Amino acid sequence: MINKNNNNKRTTIKDVAQAAGFSTTSVSLVLNNKNSRISEESKLLINKVAAEMNYRPNQMAVSLVQQRTKTIGLVISDISNLFFANLTKGIENACKALGYNVILCNSNDNFEYCLEEINILLDRKIDGLILGLTVDTDLKKAKICEKLLNSYNTPFITVDRFYEEIKCPAVIVDNELGGYLATEYLIKKGHRKIGFISGPNYLHCARFRLKGYKKALKKNNIKINENYIVEGKYSQTSGVEAFNILIEQKPTAIFISNGTMAIGAYRQALKDKIKIPEELSIVAYDDYYFMDLLDVPLTTIKQPIYEMGKEAAHKIVSLINNIDDDNEYTVLPPKLIIRESVKDIK
Amino acid sequence: MINKNNNNKRTTIKDVAQAAGFSTTSVSLVLNNKNSRISEESKLLINKVAAEMNYRPNQMAVSLVQQRTKTIGLVISDISNLFFANLTKGIENACKALGYNVILCNSNDNFEYCLEEINILLDRKIDGLILGLTVDTDLKKAKICEKLLNSYNTPFITVDRFYEEIKCPAVIVDNELGGYLATEYLIKKGHRKIGFISGPNYLHCARFRLKGYKKALKKNNIKINENYIVEGKYSQTSGVEAFNILIEQKPTAIFISNGTMAIGAYRQALKDKIKIPEELSIVAYDDYYFMDLLDVPLTTIKQPIYEMGKEAAHKIVSLINNIDDDNEYTVLPPKLIIRESVKDIK
Repeated sequence: MINKNNNNKRTTIKDVAQAAGFSTTSVSLVLNNKNSRISEESKLLINKVAAEMNYRPNQMAVSLVQQRTKTIGLVISDISNLFFANLTKGIENACKALGYNVILCNSNDNFEYCLEEINILLDRKIDGLILGLTVDTDLKKAKICEKLLNSYNTPFITVDRFYEEIKCPAVIVDNELGGYLATEYLIKKGHRKIGFISGPNYLHCARFRLKGYKKALKKNNIKINENYIVEGKYSQTSGVEAFNILIEQKPTAIFISNGTMAIGAYRQALKDKIKIPEELSIVAYDDYYFMDLLDVPLTTIKQPIYEMGKEAAHKIVSLINNIDDDNEYTVLPPKLIIRESVKDIK
Repeated sequence: MINKNNNNKRTTIKDVAQAAGFSTTSVSLVLNNKNSRISEESKLLINKVAAEMNYRPNQMAVSLVQQRTKTIGLVISDISNLFFANLTKGIENACKALGYNVILCNSNDNFEYCLEEINILLDRKIDGLILGLTVDTDLKKAKICEKLLNSYNTPFITVDRFYEEIKCPAVIVDNELGGYLATEYLIKKGHRKIGFISGPNYLHCARFRLKGYKKALKKNNIKINENYIVEGKYSQTSGVEAFNILIEQKPTAIFISNGTMAIGAYRQALKDKIKIPEELSIVAYDDYYFMDLLDVPLTTIKQPIYEMGKEAAHKIVSLINNIDDDNEYTVLPPKLIIRESVKDIK
C-alpha cells in the first residue's frame, strides 16, 4: 500500500487519500477529528492507513489553528556555565513531567542575541517563555526586552537574574542571604579583612550579594572598606583581574560572588603560589560538582539550582493555564557548604 | 498614530493598514515585497508606519511560504556534560557567523525523548538538523532514528556519536587515535598492567577507543588481559562502579574513556585514600576546564570539541545550500595533555 519511492518524503494528506481511496477532504476531516458524515468504518480505515504511512500533521499548520503547542521556550545566557546547564536540566525535567517539551536558545550572554532569540522562539508558537537575562542586560536593556515580550501575547517569566522594575513573575535565589552567610562564616572564623569580588553592579543579584556582605560586616561592627570590594564581570578572566587588584590590599580572606570568577581567582592563587587556606581563605559563590575535588576543597554558597528550574517550570505552566499563582516572586534560600578553604584565625 | 490600547498586543497587517490609511491588501503587498502598482512614496509611508508600530511578520506563516528559516536545529544528549555544553557553544558561534540561529533540545540521554525532540524541531521548519545521539542509542535504535529523519525533507548530520551503517554525514573525533595515545603514553612510562574503563560497547566511539587501547598494547607486545577491561556507561556512577571492579585487579594505571566517568573514578580513589600517581596512575579521556586544578592535575586526552562544533555548523550549512562537501565524515584528531597523574615506573 505504501509507495516505495515515497519512503524518504513526508507523508501528506494527499498520499493518505490516494492510498486509502478517499478524497483529500474526507481524509482531512477524519485526521483532524472534525465532525462529518463519514462512517466509523471508513474513519478506522483512514486512521489505519495514516498510521501505516507514518502520517504526522504539519505542526506549524496545526499550531496556527489550535494556538497550543505544549512547548515551552527557554532563553539561557551561557550554556557552558555549569550553573545554567543545571538550571536547564531542572527546567526540562519538570516540564517533561508536566507534559511540556522545551526548546532552547543560548544567548551567549549577548543582549542583541537574546532579543533575536526571543523573537525566534516566540515566532515558533511556544505556549510560554522562560527567560534568563544576559550578563550585559542593565535596567535600560531589560526594559527593551520587556517591551518586546509584551508585544507578543505569550506568558513569560524570568529566572535567576531579574529586575523589580520589570513586570513579570520571577524565580530567584535569596542573593542577600547568600552574601550574608558567606561573610558571617568568615567573620566567625576570625576574619576582619575580607575582600569581596562582586558581580556587575547593575545586576540585581550582584547588588544583593554585596548587600548581604555589607550587612554581615555591619552586624559585627566591622567597618566597610571600599578598597576591599572589586567589581568583576562574572567571567573567569574578570575573576583573575579582580583577584590581582584585591590581593594588593592584603586581605586574610576573599569571598568571590560567582563560581566562574572563583575558578579564575583560584587558578591565579595557585599560579602565585599563595597557600590556601594558610595564607588566604576563600569562599566561592556556586557549588559546582567538582569543587570538592580541587587541590583545596572549596567552601561555597550552594544555590538550589535544580529546584529553581523546577519552580520556574511550574510557574510558567500555571501562567499558561491561568492557574492562580499567589507568589509573583519565588525566592529560594541558598546554603553554606563548609569544606577546607577557610582558616580559623581566631 | 499608535493606539495605546494596542501596546501590549502584536501589531497585525490590519493595524498597520488602519494607521497608514491603506487597504490591508496594499499593506500586505508592500510588507511582503510583492510587485504591485503602489507608488514608491506610499511604500515608504507603509514601511515607516510598520516600523514605528514594531510590526513583525508572523514567522510561521512566512516559513510556510518561503520554506527557509535561517534556523538550525540541534538535539544534544546531555547539556549538563561539559563536553556537550562546549560542543553546543562551538556549533552556535559558527552558525551565528554563517548567518544562522540555533534552536536546541536536550534529550537527557533518553532515546524516546530524542525521537520526540527530532519531531518537535523538524515540525518547526528548521533548515537543517545536527543530531547528537543519546548514550542508549544502539544500532537498532539508530536505524529508527534514521527512518524518522528520512521521513522529513530536511538535511541532517550527526556529531560525535555515529554509526557507519547510518547514511548521513558526520563530524567525529578520531577515537582510535585517542585510545592509542593515552595507552602508548602509559606504556612509555613503564606501565604494563593498564586497566581500561570503556564506554558502552555498542557505541562506535567506545569501540574505537578500546581498539586504540588494544592496538597500543599489541604494538608493544603486551598481552591483552580482558580482566583489565571494564565497561562503564559514560556516567559518574558507572565510573565509580568500574573503578571498584578494576582496582581488585591491582593495575598500576587506569585509563578512563570519558571525562564524566573519570570524575567518578577520581573521587572514589580519593575516598579510598589511594595516592595518585604514587600508587595508581590515571589518564582521563576529555579535558574539562578544571582538570588542571584538581588535587592531582590530570593527564588527559583533549578532544577538539569547539572545532568539532564549528565543523558541524559548516557541514550542515553546506548541505542546506547544496554546496559539495567531499568529506562525508570529518574526523578530527585528539591530543595528549601531560600533567601530573602518571608516575614514571621505568
